[in-house]
Amino acid sequence: MSAASTFPSIPTAVIGASGYSGEVLMRLLIGHPAADVVCVTSRQHAGKPIDEIFPRFCGASKVSGLNFSDATVDAVVSARATCAFLALPHGVAAEFAEPLVAQGIRVIDLSADFRLRDPAVYEDFYGHVHPAPELLAQAVYGLPEWRSAEIRSAQLVASPGCYPTSILLPLLPLLKARLVDPESIAVSSMSGASGAGKKADTALLFAEVNESLRAYGAPKHRHLSEIEQELSFAAALPVRISFVPHLLPVTAGIASTIFCEPSTGVSMDRLADEVNHVLRDAYSQAPFVRLRGLGGFPDTKHVVGTNFIDIGWVLDNRTGRLILMSAEDNLGKGAASQAVQSYNLMHALPETTGLMNF
Amino acid sequence: MSAASTFPSIPTAVIGASGYSGEVLMRLLIGHPAADVVCVTSRQHAGKPIDEIFPRFCGASKVSGLNFSDATVDAVVSARATCAFLALPHGVAAEFAEPLVAQGIRVIDLSADFRLRDPAVYEDFYGHVHPAPELLAQAVYGLPEWRSAEIRSAQLVASPGCYPTSILLPLLPLLKARLVDPESIAVSSMSGASGAGKKADTALLFAEVNESLRAYGAPKHRHLSEIEQELSFAAALPVRISFVPHLLPVTAGIASTIFCEPSTGVSMDRLADEVNHVLRDAYSQAPFVRLRGLGGFPDTKHVVGTNFIDIGWVLDNRTGRLILMSAEDNLGKGAASQAVQSYNLMHALPETTGLMNF
Amino acid sequence: MSAASTFPSIPTAVIGASGYSGEVLMRLLIGHPAADVVCVTSRQHAGKPIDEIFPRFCGASKVSGLNFSDATVDAVVSARATCAFLALPHGVAAEFAEPLVAQGIRVIDLSADFRLRDPAVYEDFYGHVHPAPELLAQAVYGLPEWRSAEIRSAQLVASPGCYPTSILLPLLPLLKARLVDPESIAVSSMSGASGAGKKADTALLFAEVNESLRAYGAPKHRHLSEIEQELSFAAALPVRISFVPHLLPVTAGIASTIFCEPSTGVSMDRLADEVNHVLRDAYSQAPFVRLRGLGGFPDTKHVVGTNFIDIGWVLDNRTGRLILMSAEDNLGKGAASQAVQSYNLMHALPETTGLMNF
Amino acid sequence: MSAASTFPSIPTAVIGASGYSGEVLMRLLIGHPAADVVCVTSRQHAGKPIDEIFPRFCGASKVSGLNFSDATVDAVVSARATCAFLALPHGVAAEFAEPLVAQGIRVIDLSADFRLRDPAVYEDFYGHVHPAPELLAQAVYGLPEWRSAEIRSAQLVASPGCYPTSILLPLLPLLKARLVDPESIAVSSMSGASGAGKKADTALLFAEVNESLRAYGAPKHRHLSEIEQELSFAAALPVRISFVPHLLPVTAGIASTIFCEPSTGVSMDRLADEVNHVLRDAYSQAPFVRLRGLGGFPDTKHVVGTNFIDIGWVLDNRTGRLILMSAEDNLGKGAASQAVQSYNLMHALPETTGLMNF
Repeated sequence: MSAASTFPSIPTAVIGASGYSGEVLMRLLIGHPAADVVCVTSRQHAGKPIDEIFPRFCGASKVSGLNFSDATVDAVVSARATCAFLALPHGVAAEFAEPLVAQGIRVIDLSADFRLRDPAVYEDFYGHVHPAPELLAQAVYGLPEWRSAEIRSAQLVASPGCYPTSILLPLLPLLKARLVDPESIAVSSMSGASGAGKKADTALLFAEVNESLRAYGAPKHRHLSEIEQELSFAAALPVRISFVPHLLPVTAGIASTIFCEPSTGVSMDRLADEVNHVLRDAYSQAPFVRLRGLGGFPDTKHVVGTNFIDIGWVLDNRTGRLILMSAEDNLGKGAASQAVQSYNLMHALPETTGLMNF
Repeated sequence: MSAASTFPSIPTAVIGASGYSGEVLMRLLIGHPAADVVCVTSRQHAGKPIDEIFPRFCGASKVSGLNFSDATVDAVVSARATCAFLALPHGVAAEFAEPLVAQGIRVIDLSADFRLRDPAVYEDFYGHVHPAPELLAQAVYGLPEWRSAEIRSAQLVASPGCYPTSILLPLLPLLKARLVDPESIAVSSMSGASGAGKKADTALLFAEVNESLRAYGAPKHRHLSEIEQELSFAAALPVRISFVPHLLPVTAGIASTIFCEPSTGVSMDRLADEVNHVLRDAYSQAPFVRLRGLGGFPDTKHVVGTNFIDIGWVLDNRTGRLILMSAEDNLGKGAASQAVQSYNLMHALPETTGLMNF
Repeated sequence: MSAASTFPSIPTAVIGASGYSGEVLMRLLIGHPAADVVCVTSRQHAGKPIDEIFPRFCGASKVSGLNFSDATVDAVVSARATCAFLALPHGVAAEFAEPLVAQGIRVIDLSADFRLRDPAVYEDFYGHVHPAPELLAQAVYGLPEWRSAEIRSAQLVASPGCYPTSILLPLLPLLKARLVDPESIAVSSMSGASGAGKKADTALLFAEVNESLRAYGAPKHRHLSEIEQELSFAAALPVRISFVPHLLPVTAGIASTIFCEPSTGVSMDRLADEVNHVLRDAYSQAPFVRLRGLGGFPDTKHVVGTNFIDIGWVLDNRTGRLILMSAEDNLGKGAASQAVQSYNLMHALPETTGLMNF
Repeated sequence: MSAASTFPSIPTAVIGASGYSGEVLMRLLIGHPAADVVCVTSRQHAGKPIDEIFPRFCGASKVSGLNFSDATVDAVVSARATCAFLALPHGVAAEFAEPLVAQGIRVIDLSADFRLRDPAVYEDFYGHVHPAPELLAQAVYGLPEWRSAEIRSAQLVASPGCYPTSILLPLLPLLKARLVDPESIAVSSMSGASGAGKKADTALLFAEVNESLRAYGAPKHRHLSEIEQELSFAAALPVRISFVPHLLPVTAGIASTIFCEPSTGVSMDRLADEVNHVLRDAYSQAPFVRLRGLGGFPDTKHVVGTNFIDIGWVLDNRTGRLILMSAEDNLGKGAASQAVQSYNLMHALPETTGLMNF
């Protein structure tokens, strides 16, 4: 006989569940042994049964008979949720975060609204004044591998963006260890179409995205702001990188390829050794970071549907560069499952609860 | 606090784990609370770590440190497995089934070797003499919605084929109720490329299957033999149907569209009522059959990765036909997860154990 | 030295060029030796260079410097076009067809507006009163393999729908020859996503259509109206068929699988012979119908980008059915290139002019 | 009346026509007004009709009745071909090139055998001794935008690789003009699956490549050898670059994203101006290079099926980098159509003959 653990029951709300991140979040909460889904909101679908809008969830007892609520703070409060996920567009999320936090409800925000410490950077990258700058000080950037202690006690977690997660996890340990020259970093990322959201936009139609490979958004994609903020913290000096995202015909997945050079004085031989040590040390206790090692080429197909990020690297001795490669599910470790990882930490659950999917 | 159940620990073997069904089976057993995976064989990968061949399974404690064994009966026996899944090609499976059954090990065979009662039909459709006809009498056709009692006590379960499952579940209740004319049935099925197996065949290359829609295998696909066998049992008379499978550019999923006519004397109005009643009665206790009802169009994207089959139908009053439509995962309800459903029944576990994925 | 032919120069307009059929039509006219593209309209893109909206056409001298006009009859008249293609939605096309025809401009309409002889059938299937019933008498259903003489002299050609073309070409000769029982026909068609048009509809997003197989539109898809009209003409009696279209993750292509039974008194042996003879006779002079013969399985990948339709068939002796299979490009033989085939006939050009792409 | 040109008739052979490049080459020659296809070889398909193996070519009078020959030099000679395309694997091509050149037949080789001037570099990158080093001196690297004069008179053209074309065309003018620091170049390229060839390899199956994004081949992909050779010629000094190719789920297309820095002393402002001028000057007479300009993001879907390469760029002022992006068809400008472009030059035809497809 194998004895299973017992779990608390956490009254949980999902605000804005009709997009792609919201759907994956719902799927994870349905399978999460501690999540009691008490409120699911959607302006568009208010009043309709959840399993009518998401036929995939038919038969899930946790949402059976549950209807979408209108997206209001009252709906969350009256459902007695103690924790709310926000899967809302930038700008809209802050409107909910403020009153929810004020009511003592813990908030995990999947939007960009609380990821940046400096409201001026937000304004620069997002094109409008920050909607709730007074909350920025208490918001925790929800990268569990780097801020688990702060996340555990946070009232407001700003869950990282999809591209940032795929770039930060390989680079942060190396910048912190001063192995890599912060001025040398150039990143090419490739994302599946779900990353663009569930928008009625002809540019995202199947017949447009299929059989198409294209860059977009360079040189100043919005995600650069949080990537550089976190890299700068790690390097303890301002870091600027080049970043080119690409849109590709897969539903889910992000692969990032990162070119960088060793810091002055670090030889390629030393780099080879230390990259290995530094990454292994950094993630020895991180259940969702899988190091493929030198010569390991991560493939998104091995991580889609999971909370894993796979990281490999090669040394380009001919040019003196280190090339890091990562693969994650943009809706998983890049969004919904990473948010659940924070949720686990915030509720003193094992970090892997409900997330060990393969 | 929600209390979780406790489960027995079943020493379980997977023979032939390197194909697509084998991989999904491994994924399900990794997440199955009662399965103790004691032996995983692969001729091709013998001696190699499972998570090296399947990078997706890195981090799964249940297979961590486990290597592929060579595909031998001894490997299974010496690992003390009490139940073995066979994910082997037709013809090869029987070679393992015989000695395993003789050793008292319960066998769930995903191949076609034991699906047909009549070895002459096997020879007709598979082109060679049946390799173990003496076992046919005890083999149970493992469609849990129709033979759960026999499966519970079976020593040898022949898990159904992917196309058959998608065609039988909609049709069996209607034929049994004599609502549908057995001579009127024509089926067009569409399958993802994983259905063709992991074979080094240029016809299955990405650049061949992508952007391609094509029929194949008509008019006498091998799966017809088991489809007609089971339809004939239900109708209590010999049934012959037309069946055209198509290969389509998705990885997984089968959609079947079934044209049929009411039995003589059954009006379209009566048919409309009775199809609904008969199907709902037939599957009221079946957790994995989701009836989408009249006007419901099942979509494989809502079932891929699960053990569900979704069934909808329309009445074509203009021509006097009933059109049934089903969607399933060819590797799930059409193969691996259906086999696990039998495994649950055989071990007196709740039928849904390890299978309520959404 | 190979001497090339000389061609007339036909001032040609394309009305509504921004959709998928319009784009393929533009591509064909750019390569057509007789087409002088004098006017290209688009409400949405009026005033913009054609090669800015369609980057694919950059470098095509025929459209270089040409801007989209607003979609007005005056634009067509003042450009002195003598022939206009209408690539407009149903209902809108008729608004243009009437004044253009009145001005003596020959019209090839890719919409459904003039395909049906009976305005009552139009109203039944399209849900609104026919916008220009007085033109129906003179409109010619533009299936060149069956109405070339009428097309040659037509003022108004109603180019057939994509599904209808794929179903009519295999069936018409057999119904005309009374080989096939008109009551026995059931069709399963599979179409690429471009068939749904370039609409800002979340159901058509890449992340929705990809990895999805699904039926839709049954039992009374709009295209049934023209399919049954033409089948009835051929059979000289009213024909009703069952038809289930499916939406699949390819950009372009339609595959149709047609189940039918021989007419009373026609044995399977005789059917085998006569299907072959009748189809070969019917299409011996048809350059774009490629008969793959008995046992030939057409694949859309061999016809996408061309004006060909490939047709194969099998005899299902076990059930007494004939199964016909066809493959075409839904935007090619199912729309734009078939319209150009009519254009060639209308201008006394070789039928294959500008269309022998492989 | 538009008068069409007359063309010579060039007896042309295709050696090794059964792969993906061979198939596109056949398609182009079928539509090429001067190509008389007298010999098509394939070891695998010798004796079979071409349009049986390539159903797409059914109805093409140029190959109607033509069978594959066995792949021998005699077959080419006895067919009186004066020009032969080699679409063979590396190493095998040289075996044919030598005797054909000796017989006075002009050769356009699509393999890598004659792309490198230095046999030692060939051995380093391809892992075996060069099979015909004595021919290297006369072989011309067939990049028509840079070597048209040499190609015109060449006896042996080594047509460039797919990745190299996509990287060289954007970079060569900038290196030649000394605008870009040769030590600063890092390239991320993305290729469709046809680039891996028509090989019976399970890693290339649809179910493996679909829904997968992955890097491979870094840091020393074979194509680096010719890329660096040509970049070094342009820069007049040895150039080494970092290069990471990725395999993506499209059939055809390559997108390359190139990071580089201005040469010492070149300001970002000056760079902005000069990149534009230098690229426009370099390609003002190049019909197949389409400059999308600053802020232009090329998309493979606009070039697949054509001989165009689209090039755009952005200036990353924040990091001081220039980012160039290109898109081409890996089987077109990256292989078969570029070879035909050389063929046109070699035969004093307009460079665009048979290649102005959109």
